[in-house]
Amino acid sequence: MKSDIQIANEAKILPIKNVAEAIGIHEDHLDYYGKHKAKLSASLWQEIKDKEDGKLVLVTAINPTPAGEGKTTTTVGLGQALGLLGEKAIIALREPSLGPCMGIKGGAAGGGYAQVIPMEDINLHFTGDIHAVSIAHNLLSAMLDNHLQQGNELNIDTRHIVWKRVVDMNDRALRNIIVGLGGSMQGVPREDGFMISVASEVMAILCLSNDLKDLKKRLGQIIVAYTRKGDPITAHDLKAEGAMAALLKEAINPNLVQTLENTPAILHGGPFANIAHGCNSVRATKYGLKLADIVVTEAGFGADLGAEKFLDIKCQKAGLNPNAIVLVATIRALKYNGGRNVKELATEDLDALKKGFVNLEKHIENLFHYHVPVIVTLNHFVTDTEAEVAYVKETCEAMGCAFAISNVWEKGGEGGVELANAVLDTLKNRPSDFKTLYDVNDSIKVKINTIATKIYGADRVLYSAKAMKMMKKIEGLQLDKLPICIAKTQYSLSDDPTKLGRPSGFSITVRDLNVSAGAEFIVALTGDVMTMPGLPKVPSAQSIDIDDDGNISGLF
Amino acid sequence: MKSDIQIANEAKILPIKNVAEAIGIHEDHLDYYGKHKAKLSASLWQEIKDKEDGKLVLVTAINPTPAGEGKTTTTVGLGQALGLLGEKAIIALREPSLGPCMGIKGGAAGGGYAQVIPMEDINLHFTGDIHAVSIAHNLLSAMLDNHLQQGNELNIDTRHIVWKRVVDMNDRALRNIIVGLGGSMQGVPREDGFMISVASEVMAILCLSNDLKDLKKRLGQIIVAYTRKGDPITAHDLKAEGAMAALLKEAINPNLVQTLENTPAILHGGPFANIAHGCNSVRATKYGLKLADIVVTEAGFGADLGAEKFLDIKCQKAGLNPNAIVLVATIRALKYNGGRNVKELATEDLDALKKGFVNLEKHIENLFHYHVPVIVTLNHFVTDTEAEVAYVKETCEAMGCAFAISNVWEKGGEGGVELANAVLDTLKNRPSDFKTLYDVNDSIKVKINTIATKIYGADRVLYSAKAMKMMKKIEGLQLDKLPICIAKTQYSLSDDPTKLGRPSGFSITVRDLNVSAGAEFIVALTGDVMTMPGLPKVPSAQSIDIDDDGNISGLF
Repeated sequence: MKSDIQIANEAKILPIKNVAEAIGIHEDHLDYYGKHKAKLSASLWQEIKDKEDGKLVLVTAINPTPAGEGKTTTTVGLGQALGLLGEKAIIALREPSLGPCMGIKGGAAGGGYAQVIPMEDINLHFTGDIHAVSIAHNLLSAMLDNHLQQGNELNIDTRHIVWKRVVDMNDRALRNIIVGLGGSMQGVPREDGFMISVASEVMAILCLSNDLKDLKKRLGQIIVAYTRKGDPITAHDLKAEGAMAALLKEAINPNLVQTLENTPAILHGGPFANIAHGCNSVRATKYGLKLADIVVTEAGFGADLGAEKFLDIKCQKAGLNPNAIVLVATIRALKYNGGRNVKELATEDLDALKKGFVNLEKHIENLFHYHVPVIVTLNHFVTDTEAEVAYVKETCEAMGCAFAISNVWEKGGEGGVELANAVLDTLKNRPSDFKTLYDVNDSIKVKINTIATKIYGADRVLYSAKAMKMMKKIEGLQLDKLPICIAKTQYSLSDDPTKLGRPSGFSITVRDLNVSAGAEFIVALTGDVMTMPGLPKVPSAQSIDIDDDGNISGLF
Repeated sequence: MKSDIQIANEAKILPIKNVAEAIGIHEDHLDYYGKHKAKLSASLWQEIKDKEDGKLVLVTAINPTPAGEGKTTTTVGLGQALGLLGEKAIIALREPSLGPCMGIKGGAAGGGYAQVIPMEDINLHFTGDIHAVSIAHNLLSAMLDNHLQQGNELNIDTRHIVWKRVVDMNDRALRNIIVGLGGSMQGVPREDGFMISVASEVMAILCLSNDLKDLKKRLGQIIVAYTRKGDPITAHDLKAEGAMAALLKEAINPNLVQTLENTPAILHGGPFANIAHGCNSVRATKYGLKLADIVVTEAGFGADLGAEKFLDIKCQKAGLNPNAIVLVATIRALKYNGGRNVKELATEDLDALKKGFVNLEKHIENLFHYHVPVIVTLNHFVTDTEAEVAYVKETCEAMGCAFAISNVWEKGGEGGVELANAVLDTLKNRPSDFKTLYDVNDSIKVKINTIATKIYGADRVLYSAKAMKMMKKIEGLQLDKLPICIAKTQYSLSDDPTKLGRPSGFSITVRDLNVSAGAEFIVALTGDVMTMPGLPKVPSAQSIDIDDDGNISGLF
């Protein structure tokens, strides 16, 4: 069996100019980054902005299991299949963070015969967007500490600084640090810490901004600290947003690459899916909708987090109207949800499948709240039996979903034709009437309660004293009319990662609340969220290598 | 008077493809970064490597003063002038660090009518080389701390870790920090600190490596820590060099841009000029020599540091043979050296000029040690009088130097024609017989002594106990047969920044020694060296802005 990198290296990659031409983009609107990557310029937007929008298809999944679901692979394969069928389709994905590639082997650009390329570039520096986010973020940090050093005119409470620093690396030793040591010329000593760059609010802002003007406004709104009186101090108070926006001048423009089958793919932005909304950029999606008849995009984690945030945060705030949702599951993952362990998934087990199907069932029901038609797809494994597939197909169809098998990992676009046809049929025959789950003008409690009961299936929501105090603070700041971004385990519909299937009779505990005033959402934290990963005992960096001719190995 | 950015914006910038074509580079060998920047690929080297080398001209200067010397401006203007005269010339410069642009107003791409463009790109992210250096450096840091966390099999002494972290930002609060706090799952607590990225040994290595193979070998040699027994622990011991080299895959390729007059300019690498050697990359210089008849390059700080390191470290190790040296001075700076203060420099003062001329005289004598012909150029100011210019010209010529006035800041290439003709005459009629100042096989003490007495004019060198201990250690590690890189104040030939002119009767104190085993030089520290700048009370970042159309202001 060939590895992902072998398959990628054997692909007939086209000059990105040709990929762009195929969707009507003139070379003048491209800023090349080497021969196979390009940024789509702001001038392109001026040319296309009045065109009619194409259709928007979201790919999401059941709760992730160790069995693997293949959401990105399915997204890429669906795009390839639509291309095969002669449709003008574009894939819109997040761009991966470099740090995690150094930890556990594996990139984030699809797999098998459904990949975006050039995969090494995409997984390493790509076009420098994340580096730009890192440095814009750290400029604000430096200006904040410099303000303290130069006399602290704004009366910032050094115990109440909420703006950490970032680096695009898995580096646990930077989670909790003390800065400003060494005497009065070396800064003001205080507790601090680093997050991985994609956890930065700057990344969330980059992804939710319509244009440079909106970006700069939102950067100015970032709350970095509070005074002793509890008043917020913003990036604007530190006069930082202009320089931060200047540093993001190129990063705000979407990146064009291609799949193994030369389907155009826009990879742009990659915010965390827990403390942030986990979708690619609004700008990329909007460019895609003007350039293609169908845009296939995805959201992070399972549908309870990813799809919910895509629909209630990204679509609601950006005025996007999704036309269909593809919900990815695997027979293996459903059996795992039905109580089998990872080693037992290769044998037929209809009981476990039926028992685990409830996880898929709940996600289907959840998506119905949004009035967008749903297509369930089974990402095919050779061990799936006919009886198992038939059960899932019948049950899904009985619930009112379209159904398709996909096998894009093994067969590329050809393996996605059944799914592509189901999507095309849905787009043609089943109109979407998208409605968000809640009204942003509801109170914070009502909004959180709506998500927890309707999507997670919880009975009720409990709040820590800290969360209640912060809720009052956010209300006092009149920042409560924002969407909610819940940070919760991805492995369960509940806030307990061990509760598989379709948990019931549980409560969700909101431990803390934060406001991302620039990204314009309120983060509700349930349980601990890791914003800085660590490296494992044997990091994959140890086996990454490059030969004298520049060929990289060990990255995938 | 127009600002640098106004002049830059009015320039007729060519597509970089055309600039490359003019020096015989086919588009296939270019990796574009937008329309006006490109990397020269390794495939180009294969095509040109057997061509005859052009001539190499170094531009250096007297000790910097607050009056300003304009070394980079002269370098760019000389390149423009050679182009005007129909010569096939390339300029080879360092690429600037982004961090300092956020502190004190001013870029690092020349000035007036002698600039390299696009200046905003060059001063901000450029082609991402410094970001790549930062992340390769910080990967090694993360792997080091991860090794401690996972059991410290190599028995690293946590009190003897010499590898700090880096960020491309002026951020004094990160100079002295404690990492690894928060309990046993969050790393091992220890003292640490950040340097600005260009101070990283990775940057010095990038600049001194011939190719990827050499780069990887040198990265592996980096000493990150010592064991309790005093044995060195290297990046190779941590198995980090392969991944680090993979992260530098693009960064190792030189960047092509252009001047205001479309002269080709290779900007590549930017190591510190104190703890490192302060020159652009060996690779860039070698590409330039194959592509052009004349390569004009520069070295950091004054000739005592910059030229010395260029000649004794870069040229010696890379086998480069400089053909001429341009030594830049100004009447104003010479009068400042003669004891006048900055406000008094606009009036004629032959006495002060003669008194201060000794600084220039000493630098000329120093350069004669290398047997490379010297051209002195006065960077012209309107306040210079005929008598003042005549004095400098006559005295320089009497010493055996060529002499030329240059006025490139005001007039661009046209203002550099006199200098260009002097350079051309020198290249034609005065052969170079380059010899290094010392033999790398001499002892550390002999090498330091040679530089201090012959170049600085010191009577003797004193060593701290710490330096002596480290010298023995370096000898014990058999790393003593390397060139010396002295970190010294740039403002004086001595190690006391207040001693202007031509100090005598002084000693140089070596406070500490380090070995950059990957960069392959020994660093001798005289006085404190700042490797992490701070922001001023009102950082220039506060006035940097970008409008809705992407036009940046306040950067220059």
